[in-house]
Amino acid sequence: MTSSDSLIYGRNPVLEQLKREPERVEKVLVRENLRGSWIEEIRKLSSANRISLSFVPGRRLFELVGNVNDQGVIAQITPVSYLEFHDWLDSAEPDSETAILLLDGIEDPHNFGAILRSAAAAGMTAVVVPKHRQAPVNATVFKTSAGTAGRIPIVRTGNLNQSILELKERGFWIAGLDQDADQSLWGLEATVPLAFVIGSEGQGIRKKTSEHCDFHYAIPMSNGVESLNASVSAALICYEWRRHRDLKA
Amino acid sequence: MTSSDSLIYGRNPVLEQLKREPERVEKVLVRENLRGSWIEEIRKLSSANRISLSFVPGRRLFELVGNVNDQGVIAQITPVSYLEFHDWLDSAEPDSETAILLLDGIEDPHNFGAILRSAAAAGMTAVVVPKHRQAPVNATVFKTSAGTAGRIPIVRTGNLNQSILELKERGFWIAGLDQDADQSLWGLEATVPLAFVIGSEGQGIRKKTSEHCDFHYAIPMSNGVESLNASVSAALICYEWRRHRDLKA
Repeated sequence: MTSSDSLIYGRNPVLEQLKREPERVEKVLVRENLRGSWIEEIRKLSSANRISLSFVPGRRLFELVGNVNDQGVIAQITPVSYLEFHDWLDSAEPDSETAILLLDGIEDPHNFGAILRSAAAAGMTAVVVPKHRQAPVNATVFKTSAGTAGRIPIVRTGNLNQSILELKERGFWIAGLDQDADQSLWGLEATVPLAFVIGSEGQGIRKKTSEHCDFHYAIPMSNGVESLNASVSAALICYEWRRHRDLKA
Repeated sequence: MTSSDSLIYGRNPVLEQLKREPERVEKVLVRENLRGSWIEEIRKLSSANRISLSFVPGRRLFELVGNVNDQGVIAQITPVSYLEFHDWLDSAEPDSETAILLLDGIEDPHNFGAILRSAAAAGMTAVVVPKHRQAPVNATVFKTSAGTAGRIPIVRTGNLNQSILELKERGFWIAGLDQDADQSLWGLEATVPLAFVIGSEGQGIRKKTSEHCDFHYAIPMSNGVESLNASVSAALICYEWRRHRDLKA
C-alpha cells in the first residue's frame, strides 16, 4: 500500500478493475481519438460508477506510465483496499483491546475520510462499512483522511445487520449512540470486544440496527444542540474508548 | 438572534453594513438595470469582501421584503453576532466551570462551523476568534454548524496573544495541544477557568502563542497518524473538559 495513487493500464486490466472493484477507480484516461466497442464498454462502466473519464493526448499517457503497452487506457486507483467481512472476521481474534466502528451509511466523503483518520489515530481495530448507502473510498475520502485511510483495515459487508449478529456470536458487544439513552458516553466500559455503530448524517442509526445494540449511550449536549457532526460523534466514541485503553494500561 | 437570515434594505443601511461589518453580509441583491455611483460602491465593497452580489428582477426583491422602499438593494445578514473581547471579558465571571476556546486562525469555514457546533454542544462558555486570519461567520459556517453557531458567544479580538495575557490576569489558565507534550489529554484537570488554544489546520498553534500556554497536552495517536482534523481536535478537547464537568457534578 502506498501513499500515492497507483496506475493500471491496458484494455483488460482496466476493464477487470472496473468490473471487479470500481469503487477503487478514481479516474480513467483514454487516448484521444481512440474508438471501439471496448472503449465504449469502459465508458459505460465508468459512467455507471460515476468515475470521471477523460480523453487526453497520447503523450499525457506516456508521461504517466512511460514506454509500456498501455493500449491507450490508464486507470488511476486509490491506495486503499477493502477486506471482505468474513475474511476479516475469520482471522480476527477479538479481546478486550478490540474495538471496531460500524458505519451505518455515511454518505458524505468528507465525514468518511475524517472518521477513517480518527479511527486510525485512536488505534481502532477496523472500520466496517456497508457495500451500499456508503461513500466509496475515493480521492476525496483519501484526501480528507490526510492519507491515513490506508492505515486501518476497511471491511466491507453486504448486510450490516447480519454482520452485527455474526459479530455478537464472536463475542463482540454492540454499542450505539442514542440521544434518548439514560446512560452517557462517560458510562462506557471497555472490558469486552466492542463494535460501535455510527449512524448516518441525516437519519442516525436505523431502527433495526439500533435494536441489535447491547448498549446505548448519549453524548451530553447543552444549548439545545441536538446532534453533532457524524465525524465528531465518531471521534468522541473512538477516543472515549482510547482513553479507557490508555488508562487501563 | 434568529435561526434564519435577516434582511436589510435601502442604500444607506446596506452601505453602512458593508463598511462596518461586512463579514456578516452573506449576499447582496440589486435590482437589475439599476446603475449609479452608489451601486458601484456597493459592488466594490462586496467584491473586496468576497460577498456574492446578484442583479435580480424587482419582483424578487418584492418577494423578500414586501412593499417597502428598498431603493433596489437588499443585503442578507447572518444571524450570528460577535462580541468584542473587552466587552465580553469585562462581564465575564470566570470560575471552575468556565472554559473557552481560542481559535488561532481556523481558515476552513467547514471546520469553523463544526467547532462552533461542538463548543455549543459541550457547553463551552465562549469561542474567541482573531479578527484576521480567520474564516468569518458566513453562510457556510452557519450551515456547517447546523444552525448552532448563534448559541454560543463568539468573541473577536484584534490580537490573540494580547488577549491571552489579559485572560491570564483574569485567572484563566491557557492550554494548548502539542503532540510532543509529555502529558496526554487524559491528564487534563478542570478545576480552574480554562482557555484552550486550537491551532490552524496547517500550522498548528503559532510558536509565540504556544509559549503563552500553561499546559500542553498531546492527543494519543496510533498508526503513525500525526494530527487530527482541527474540528476533531477541538471536539475532543471540548468533550474532555465536559466529561470532567459532568463527573464532578
